[in-house]
Amino acid sequence: MNKFTPETRAPHQALAQALAPDLAQVDALIRARMASEHAPRIPEVTAHLIEAGGKRIRPMLVLAAARLCGYGGHFHHHLAATVEFIHTATLLHDDVVDESAQRRGRATANLLWDNKSSVLVGDYLFARAFQMMVECGSLSVLDILSNAAATIAEGEVLQLSTAANLSTTEEQYLRVIRGKTAALFSAATEAGAVLAEAPAAQVGALRDYGDALGVSFQMVDDWLDYGGAGTGIGKNIGDDFRERKLTLPVIRAVVRADATERAFWQRVIESGAQEQGDFEAAQEIIARHGSLEETRQEALDWSARARNALTELPDHPLREMLDGLADYVVSRLY
Amino acid sequence: MNKFTPETRAPHQALAQALAPDLAQVDALIRARMASEHAPRIPEVTAHLIEAGGKRIRPMLVLAAARLCGYGGHFHHHLAATVEFIHTATLLHDDVVDESAQRRGRATANLLWDNKSSVLVGDYLFARAFQMMVECGSLSVLDILSNAAATIAEGEVLQLSTAANLSTTEEQYLRVIRGKTAALFSAATEAGAVLAEAPAAQVGALRDYGDALGVSFQMVDDWLDYGGAGTGIGKNIGDDFRERKLTLPVIRAVVRADATERAFWQRVIESGAQEQGDFEAAQEIIARHGSLEETRQEALDWSARARNALTELPDHPLREMLDGLADYVVSRLY
Repeated sequence: MNKFTPETRAPHQALAQALAPDLAQVDALIRARMASEHAPRIPEVTAHLIEAGGKRIRPMLVLAAARLCGYGGHFHHHLAATVEFIHTATLLHDDVVDESAQRRGRATANLLWDNKSSVLVGDYLFARAFQMMVECGSLSVLDILSNAAATIAEGEVLQLSTAANLSTTEEQYLRVIRGKTAALFSAATEAGAVLAEAPAAQVGALRDYGDALGVSFQMVDDWLDYGGAGTGIGKNIGDDFRERKLTLPVIRAVVRADATERAFWQRVIESGAQEQGDFEAAQEIIARHGSLEETRQEALDWSARARNALTELPDHPLREMLDGLADYVVSRLY
Repeated sequence: MNKFTPETRAPHQALAQALAPDLAQVDALIRARMASEHAPRIPEVTAHLIEAGGKRIRPMLVLAAARLCGYGGHFHHHLAATVEFIHTATLLHDDVVDESAQRRGRATANLLWDNKSSVLVGDYLFARAFQMMVECGSLSVLDILSNAAATIAEGEVLQLSTAANLSTTEEQYLRVIRGKTAALFSAATEAGAVLAEAPAAQVGALRDYGDALGVSFQMVDDWLDYGGAGTGIGKNIGDDFRERKLTLPVIRAVVRADATERAFWQRVIESGAQEQGDFEAAQEIIARHGSLEETRQEALDWSARARNALTELPDHPLREMLDGLADYVVSRLY
């Protein structure tokens, strides 16, 4: 069913090609600004994240939004580098783990260096991001990014306190995934449009696109963690279950649980006393209550919402690529 | 020799009294903005730091600078709350420790909660600080604070890499203590003046005052750690030695070390193989080379520089209090 075969070019690759000259400038800016004359450890820590060749989705969202709205200046490069720095800083801070988690032995930056370096270098990237934003000279852009930063941090703290908590609501779940993904996606597209001084309707449309794209993206991830076996995308399934995260498939199954199932969720999620076969039992319960299929449908709905928002925007090849991107995100569901 | 006896009012208390109505507004703002409707853990983590009744030196520097330059608006409250949030966030992030350090068993926020909460709540405070700054509506203020944030983070990373490193230079030391203390002090006074649209000479004077005050403050701290026995100020001496920090008294003693002393410093600082009596031996070497007395003199010089900067400013009771504060900082040296 996946129409994006290795033979066809995926939308993010089309975007990267259309935005290649801009992206080269952004990469140069990222390299220049992550350097520190006085603290050479900084690029050591960041390089393995920034050079690792991420897809640069967030910078591309900034660039595409600005270009789509007719921006002719060069501060969209600063803004694109800004969102990539914020993203990298949050990755570094996410890697800081408690002693218990460290024992699980993940090969994150904090193990290659140490917790303290991850925290302080993340702070440095936040500060450098903030400097680049100020250079853009737009208080509206600063307002959008500062609100996104608060939403991200609030979502991360909320995720800590909802883990292993069976009373987590769908509203809280949505807030967590907005913090994790959608807040920076929507800030990227909205700020790109604001930088281009686009009309309010276009700014709103691009913000809604970024938000819906991010929510859809994260819901697909959460679906894959229970339903992704055999999709061939190489993601390990069951991670959320082992980390006792309350994602949408589980939240809906818990609401509909009978007494036996409730006892099961209490044992595996609340108490964390997981045994061999529990993940498969969880998959079976989730499928039986239809909450896996519902999560898939929600992800498709959010993708459709993202594509629908784009109808506010002028006809443009970049608009088609953003449309394709929203389609691509949910292609992992098949 | 200390002229600030318990009977006389210390300058920070005089400032607190002169700025009491402003400080009450700042406290209300701090309380309102550290709350999070959706993540109640946030005020739990910050309250013990913010409510602990710090001296609010940084907010007072903002308020005094703005008032001294004739500011009549109300955004100095936002700016004052901003610098307190940034300060609190850096404290939270400083508390994040590596596994090895955790074993030393300090009772920091990261032990009461965990590393991850300290990091994410610190990020939340940074984001909230950033939002309040944007509300002030001044790109110049944002520029000052974003540069300070980068200097702070760079200094913190530099401190990590200079620890236990005997080749640390005085220039690096100065950069570290600017990051630790002086960068936020000078950003506070400079941004306060800029908010008040003060003439460039006054802005520069207040920036220089904050910088010199911060450098002096930190040098006094570093002096106390080797020379503070019997000053009755309740500071534990020897902490920097045990943490193998390269502070000014040590840097100058290392430069003048003969072969025997060099071997001593290599063992206790570079290798960290400290034994009973080593701290006393270090004190003796530092005193013999005159580097303890020189550190004291440097701290006094920076205090004088701070007071001298104030002569650019109009005659004002707040100017006298800032002058007294620079005097008070070094009063711990006697």
